[in-house]
Amino acid sequence: MQALEKLRGRMAELSDLAAIEMLAGWDQLVMMPGDGAAARAQQLGTLARLTHERATGEEIGGWLEEIDGAPDAAALDELDRDIVRVARRDWERARRVPDELAVELARAAADGQEIWQQARVDDDFAAFAPALQRNVELARAYAECVAREGESRYEALLGDYDFGLRTGELRRVFGELARALPPLAAQARVRSPRRTLEVPVGAQRAAVAGTLRRLGVDEASWRVDISAHPFTAWVGRGDSRVTTRYSDGEVESLLSSLHEYGHALYERQIDPALDRTNLGAGTSMSIHESQSKLWENHVARSPAFAEVLAAELGAGGFAVAPAELHAALVGVEPSAIRVSADPLTYPLHIVVRFELELALIDGDLAVADLPAAWREQMRRLLGVEVASDALGCLQDVHWGAGSFGYFPSYALGCLIAAQLWEAMEAELGPREDDLRRGEVAPIQRWLGEHVHRYGRRLDTMPLVERATGRALEIEPFLRYVTPLAER
Amino acid sequence: MQALEKLRGRMAELSDLAAIEMLAGWDQLVMMPGDGAAARAQQLGTLARLTHERATGEEIGGWLEEIDGAPDAAALDELDRDIVRVARRDWERARRVPDELAVELARAAADGQEIWQQARVDDDFAAFAPALQRNVELARAYAECVAREGESRYEALLGDYDFGLRTGELRRVFGELARALPPLAAQARVRSPRRTLEVPVGAQRAAVAGTLRRLGVDEASWRVDISAHPFTAWVGRGDSRVTTRYSDGEVESLLSSLHEYGHALYERQIDPALDRTNLGAGTSMSIHESQSKLWENHVARSPAFAEVLAAELGAGGFAVAPAELHAALVGVEPSAIRVSADPLTYPLHIVVRFELELALIDGDLAVADLPAAWREQMRRLLGVEVASDALGCLQDVHWGAGSFGYFPSYALGCLIAAQLWEAMEAELGPREDDLRRGEVAPIQRWLGEHVHRYGRRLDTMPLVERATGRALEIEPFLRYVTPLAER
Repeated sequence: MQALEKLRGRMAELSDLAAIEMLAGWDQLVMMPGDGAAARAQQLGTLARLTHERATGEEIGGWLEEIDGAPDAAALDELDRDIVRVARRDWERARRVPDELAVELARAAADGQEIWQQARVDDDFAAFAPALQRNVELARAYAECVAREGESRYEALLGDYDFGLRTGELRRVFGELARALPPLAAQARVRSPRRTLEVPVGAQRAAVAGTLRRLGVDEASWRVDISAHPFTAWVGRGDSRVTTRYSDGEVESLLSSLHEYGHALYERQIDPALDRTNLGAGTSMSIHESQSKLWENHVARSPAFAEVLAAELGAGGFAVAPAELHAALVGVEPSAIRVSADPLTYPLHIVVRFELELALIDGDLAVADLPAAWREQMRRLLGVEVASDALGCLQDVHWGAGSFGYFPSYALGCLIAAQLWEAMEAELGPREDDLRRGEVAPIQRWLGEHVHRYGRRLDTMPLVERATGRALEIEPFLRYVTPLAER
Repeated sequence: MQALEKLRGRMAELSDLAAIEMLAGWDQLVMMPGDGAAARAQQLGTLARLTHERATGEEIGGWLEEIDGAPDAAALDELDRDIVRVARRDWERARRVPDELAVELARAAADGQEIWQQARVDDDFAAFAPALQRNVELARAYAECVAREGESRYEALLGDYDFGLRTGELRRVFGELARALPPLAAQARVRSPRRTLEVPVGAQRAAVAGTLRRLGVDEASWRVDISAHPFTAWVGRGDSRVTTRYSDGEVESLLSSLHEYGHALYERQIDPALDRTNLGAGTSMSIHESQSKLWENHVARSPAFAEVLAAELGAGGFAVAPAELHAALVGVEPSAIRVSADPLTYPLHIVVRFELELALIDGDLAVADLPAAWREQMRRLLGVEVASDALGCLQDVHWGAGSFGYFPSYALGCLIAAQLWEAMEAELGPREDDLRRGEVAPIQRWLGEHVHRYGRRLDTMPLVERATGRALEIEPFLRYVTPLAER
């Protein structure tokens, strides 16, 4: 079938372009001399434009029609059927956005990000408000373009990050979290208080390198570098790149390197048969975040793995008892800032953002009222008094960059990680003894088999059900954090 | 004029794609984990295919025609006229190659390179001969496609590296070198014998870093890395990347880092008004090589700059007298290998290759007879007995990779560098005192003004004439090497 061959050829091209864009982005943040920024922005713009053009071309519609109408259409194997199904979905979604709106969205996102950056420095919400207003309006217009039958605007936006997610489902899950977590947090801040551990950077570096080596991070197919904000780039099969950062007297590097490792491992274990197709990537932001959170929360923050981490810090010249290290990695203290939140209160920061962005998109909250609403939510859910907008609704880049519907994936990731972890232990038995010895191969295999290999063949919720036998629920996460409130 | 705007838009896009390709190639050789090679090859293939498609599209011809026919065509400013002129030239040349031939050329080049690599290891010319035969035939077919009125096949091939170069001119210049250099070499090997200097890698690294810093290599817009073979990547304005390599007991790193610096400085000093046009790149291989050779031969190998290099080695813990260092940087000894040749005999290696590849393309030399012809030429021009084909006609990758007409630029670079150097000293006075202090700003400025800023607006020979007031001649180069035979 010639049309199928052409479609697969185009998907291979788009997959290569995505990898190149990933590489150029990685280089920009890790290697590029600062003065190269303007040229790089142009290059990335050109790549994005070309990609958009090749992803939305009329000819793709022609191929899809031809494949549908072909006499042997029913004879397609399962893989090709999935390729065609997802290609149609992506193409139709991308085609629904007029070019002018796409250009306006990109420009407003770039402007908004810049204005946000300054406004945060100046703690000046009023300076940011018009840009935010514009982003909200454009997001609504975009949502109206891409919304499918029966989808709300907010659900349409979610589709960019987690295809098929329903607002009602989020309301239910986040509502349960909003009820269950605050009382646990109140206990945990007393029973598992936040502690600092003054680990020198040299010991952190040694421990990060040694720990990642135990997890299979070798020089043949990985890079580990430093960047201002940790992230992962997947530049192609056999080329995984994670970054971390180090600062004296923090243990964040131990957590963030395992977090990024989880993202990288996901992409590495996708079925190689999906390489250079439209299915050969992580399926959604929530599942991706579940993979990073699984290694951050359930491995790096486990009492058992603390023995490995403590041994690696020891080899780096910093002696610490595993229990003391573990206490520093899990200490609970409700605070104003999301990115440094403890594992228990972290999802509450997301609930705050979900409710507010939903109200912004639905028109139930005016931009001017956001700072007050933010303070009110933080008080209600975390018991925190927000001292300034810079430490409040200006702390995250997302809304300035025009991203609405992205935040939920952070909390869903925590929940899904806990649910996957329980399903895995139900099958393999408790991981404690293995983790104490740094043995993670069975975990890697289980994730490969039940989560990773599918790539984009399964969407978020169907994948959760397939892997765990149950719809998404909050109880596994509650069981994960409850010990912090009870010890 | 709308067509002009479209043309310039396309040229900007092609310039961005070229920069991205450069980045992906740099990364492959400097940063990429080894297992990423297969995916990277696919990505580079996709980039090349897309670039070819956008560079040869029918629509470009339409724009060119529209621009020509426009009532205000005469009102184009000089820059736009040059953009249109070079765009037409590139487009017509690229369009003359049928897609199937382009694919065959690429495949034969990749195969040939692989076969060459093994044949060189095995010292087995017979194993390489069929691939070489195929490359010769394809190069002829390609030449017949792109040759313009009155151009020979070999001249058509030269056009990929040095547009407008004539075979007759090369015969004349290289014939003069073949007569003048061998007697000088015979004297120089006695008067300026090759000497080794056992410089530890640590001192080399310190000296390379310190020397490049003096030349303006800062962290804001440069990278200096290590790779198996030194090269330069120009990833965009404000983003120059040179590499070098270090081995104990060699001084090659001092020469190669200044060589690559010369390439990088050329691209950096192109008029910013040419950025993202089809003119914003070095104009030819010869001019590029003249820029690297100028810094390698006339700066790094000068007795005056040896004082700077010796001081930098001293700061790195290796004490050496400037005169001793200089002697090690210029020592003459005819040998079998091009890449490690001394400054005097280097062009003779190119004369050997020029005569042989010209004969191969013209059909005057059969592939089977190449090894014997090579030995004969080496004996005649360098007085060297070639011990094996691996150290003879199998030593370079070029022919295996399908590159014919590339070699001359290496020798032309030496000649043009010497001619530019004399023209510059005629204007600025002798550089000796400045070089002794490491003061190179006047050299940088002169090159920027007379060579670099033009980008592709002037081809090789017109640029030489504009910069030096004379056609290309060999005397400046002879004057540069004669002291080696006379001291």
